[in-house]
Amino acid sequence: MREPILLTPGPLTTSLKTKTAMLTDWGSWDRGFNDLTAGVCTDLLDIVHGAETHVCVPLQGSGTFAVEAAIGTLLPRHGKLLVLVNGAYGKRMARAVEVMGRQVAILESAEDQPSDPQQLAARLAQDPAITHVGIIHCETSTGILNPLAELADVVARMGRKLIIDSMSAFGALPIDARSLPFDALIASANKCLEGVPGMGFVIARKSALVESRGNSHSLSMDLHDQYVYMQKTGQWRFTPPTHVIAALRAALDQYHEEGGQPARLARYTANCNMLVEGLRRLELKPFLDPAVQAPIIVTFHAPAHPDYHFHSLYEAVREKGFVLYPGKLTQVETFRVGCIGAINEAEIGQAVAAIGEGLHQLGWL
Amino acid sequence: MREPILLTPGPLTTSLKTKTAMLTDWGSWDRGFNDLTAGVCTDLLDIVHGAETHVCVPLQGSGTFAVEAAIGTLLPRHGKLLVLVNGAYGKRMARAVEVMGRQVAILESAEDQPSDPQQLAARLAQDPAITHVGIIHCETSTGILNPLAELADVVARMGRKLIIDSMSAFGALPIDARSLPFDALIASANKCLEGVPGMGFVIARKSALVESRGNSHSLSMDLHDQYVYMQKTGQWRFTPPTHVIAALRAALDQYHEEGGQPARLARYTANCNMLVEGLRRLELKPFLDPAVQAPIIVTFHAPAHPDYHFHSLYEAVREKGFVLYPGKLTQVETFRVGCIGAINEAEIGQAVAAIGEGLHQLGWL
Ligand SMILES: Cc1ncc(COP(=O)(O)O)c(C=O)c1O
Ligand SMILES: Cc1ncc(COP(=O)(O)O)c(C=O)c1O
Repeated sequence: MREPILLTPGPLTTSLKTKTAMLTDWGSWDRGFNDLTAGVCTDLLDIVHGAETHVCVPLQGSGTFAVEAAIGTLLPRHGKLLVLVNGAYGKRMARAVEVMGRQVAILESAEDQPSDPQQLAARLAQDPAITHVGIIHCETSTGILNPLAELADVVARMGRKLIIDSMSAFGALPIDARSLPFDALIASANKCLEGVPGMGFVIARKSALVESRGNSHSLSMDLHDQYVYMQKTGQWRFTPPTHVIAALRAALDQYHEEGGQPARLARYTANCNMLVEGLRRLELKPFLDPAVQAPIIVTFHAPAHPDYHFHSLYEAVREKGFVLYPGKLTQVETFRVGCIGAINEAEIGQAVAAIGEGLHQLGWL
Repeated sequence: MREPILLTPGPLTTSLKTKTAMLTDWGSWDRGFNDLTAGVCTDLLDIVHGAETHVCVPLQGSGTFAVEAAIGTLLPRHGKLLVLVNGAYGKRMARAVEVMGRQVAILESAEDQPSDPQQLAARLAQDPAITHVGIIHCETSTGILNPLAELADVVARMGRKLIIDSMSAFGALPIDARSLPFDALIASANKCLEGVPGMGFVIARKSALVESRGNSHSLSMDLHDQYVYMQKTGQWRFTPPTHVIAALRAALDQYHEEGGQPARLARYTANCNMLVEGLRRLELKPFLDPAVQAPIIVTFHAPAHPDYHFHSLYEAVREKGFVLYPGKLTQVETFRVGCIGAINEAEIGQAVAAIGEGLHQLGWL
């Protein structure tokens, strides 16, 4: 049996080349490994054209660790973060700030509505204590794309700093640090870059990072410390996930070979279109308006059958070799299907067929 | 060319079986993966005979993250930790507490002296504000073994709680939760268990953990939250390093096949003896008294030659296929050689020969 294809927003299906890069044990003190780290960081920075203004600081752990680390390091102890929330990851960002004991406020919109630049401007005008704004680039809990450029414009115009969680968009959606003003942009190895999970990274404005000494609430998550140490020694402060980094190196090589960000976006867009078309034929409707749908992960309304239960659909489709993702909405019954990973229209076509068969077997068609 | 053998305290040389376990992409929501996590946690708990009293909480990131998480979760906000320091990892533990803004004190002894139970008793008698004591089981910066049982006895007798950093000892040195009283014991996948880096874990006393809600200074490192969520769902709160966990599963299978802790200790002891004997013939003397040397990593005095430079020795031996580790002492010039990893006396013999040849080439013999 072929291994199941993961239609999930990471961990996702990676190429065999990426996985076999983990068959080497690297010494974390060895020059070859330092070069690996430096090369990965350079490439990540280049993807967003940040070499002039920003630096890349990698961090052990999952993406959430990197989000928390970016805020903990760059938001001064007496700063205040306004988080634009239209889903679970926005809420989580706000919660992280709350736990670290700093000031936080939220500006919430409905889960099917992008964060609104005008509302943001009004809120910033109202509350001069807000020093930083946190936004979610693609809110993976629905798959909605927030209007990054417009929001960033407002933040800059009103003299605040921007922190972007671009976890599920980095590498596929275009980001240009030369025109988009931000202090931090956070992502991880295991989404659109198609690496394996175990590390995140922060693209931080160098001038902001060098001034952030002593802000962090946590030794492990102090990005200033991590950066300074890495500059000095070429090494990570604490044991790096060597195999994960080697896999990311291999994944980045394949990313470049494919044609970089435009090619990746094109493949995911084709995947997404095929998925939406295919499931539409099965009478499954996307939750979002196509105008705000990112080609990363699609939320579908559950089949309108009284016996519907995600678990049964999951199992039926799993048996056929595809792993779906549960919905994350509280009001509406939904499920999600990822468009990302080392897959293309062939696998999406097979997945659509498997979902159709599964629904048929369950009598939900 | 064979890949170099890592004579380092992790990341270390792992078996091919362990590395090939990373050739599968697991869905982090899938039942098969939940079973993997649960099985790993059960095995880790069983290694210290903790099933009756303790639970195992895994955490993304390096070992330092798990140490910080254990303290952040289990030391109440108004608690005070006394750290017994005789090397870099004790200092780092104290620093983590300082950064999280809680009360901390240290009791320091010389780097070649084990932490002293009598001094500990005196200090605890003096300072009733101390609620918890932190100790380093094997202080990897020298390789010294601290007297765990005696120190734990003092802590228990004087009504304090114990937090043990057993990073470099877990799995090789015996630990029995039925007789050794501790609230937390921390280790990671990539040392004596011979997994790959990317996750740590905390063996926490269940009664202490369930009472720790709200203590954590960090969302990502809140072990109470991680535990509660995992109990409820079988899943990690945030994306787990799936491939690293699969590798640890494979490494644990090999650990059991080898004969568990006694067999691992016997192999490392044989490695250590052969290493010390071999380097003694090259006139390289261990820094520590054999009575306090753990069979994990050995610190050697540098060759007594005026031109000595670690880097040159490192390169000469690296060329022959072995990766040494730098010393971590400030007063004395030393280097370190690890005895752990998927290696036995054959590789140690080869390493000794390579070091001998390297010294000869450099004219330092
Ligand atoms: C937008 C966004 N932010 C944060 C995260 C959290 O990342 P992790 O699960 O790796 O901690 C995710 C994960 O899916 C995400 O999509
Ligand atoms: C005793 C001890 N504590 C803590 C650590 C830190 O672990 P990590 O480097 O994985 O963060 C180490 C690593 O060697 C160690 O040996």
